[in-house]
Amino acid sequence: MSPEQIVTTVISALERKDLDAACSLMADDVEYDNVPIGKVVGPAAVASTLGPFFSMCGQIEWVVLHQAASGDVVMNERVDRFEMGGRWVELAVAGVWVVRDGKVVLWRDYFDLGAFQAMMAPPA
Amino acid sequence: MSPEQIVTTVISALERKDLDAACSLMADDVEYDNVPIGKVVGPAAVASTLGPFFSMCGQIEWVVLHQAASGDVVMNERVDRFEMGGRWVELAVAGVWVVRDGKVVLWRDYFDLGAFQAMMAPPA
Repeated sequence: MSPEQIVTTVISALERKDLDAACSLMADDVEYDNVPIGKVVGPAAVASTLGPFFSMCGQIEWVVLHQAASGDVVMNERVDRFEMGGRWVELAVAGVWVVRDGKVVLWRDYFDLGAFQAMMAPPA
Repeated sequence: MSPEQIVTTVISALERKDLDAACSLMADDVEYDNVPIGKVVGPAAVASTLGPFFSMCGQIEWVVLHQAASGDVVMNERVDRFEMGGRWVELAVAGVWVVRDGKVVLWRDYFDLGAFQAMMAPPA
């Protein structure tokens, strides 16, 4: 698979909440960086970052608005949508992915922390 | 010039604070969107958004960490560095650029608003 296909496959797995499938395409030393929050290293840390969050969600849908790939770098502009408590919430994200030897070695998402916190707040 | 060369040329002009040169490569209906702040439309609005800010700066340097291009889409991960009041401050940014017919039609930067506000605050 090309780097772009790897990223698309990871995102599809995440939309199914299949963390095993997603993490099987990450290198042992993958860096997963939510820029305004912080980073973790390794597939197990990715799973323990996303697992509790995904367990709060019904459906998950990540809409890719723009994507570009050059060499081992893939970048995408996304609207990450989550069904939480029966309503859909969403976050505007730009992601940087670096793929080497068929595995993601870097996944770095840029977004506004205030928008993330507003998304996570219970409805008024 | 390729879309990637257009973007690189615009960024070089911005680093020189040459807004005329930068805006000459933008379409009449260019959308410039600082995601957590808001968007403006048109080269004149780009210049009036950036001009007052640039006038507060000494040197400007935008370091591209990763860049990818596909078709008319260019994306880059940057550290935008500004010399302000004799010190350097910086902002972590992911940018989406769409180029058509040799002009930028979309420039959308993702960053954390809190990080931007912290960058703009006077030193303690």
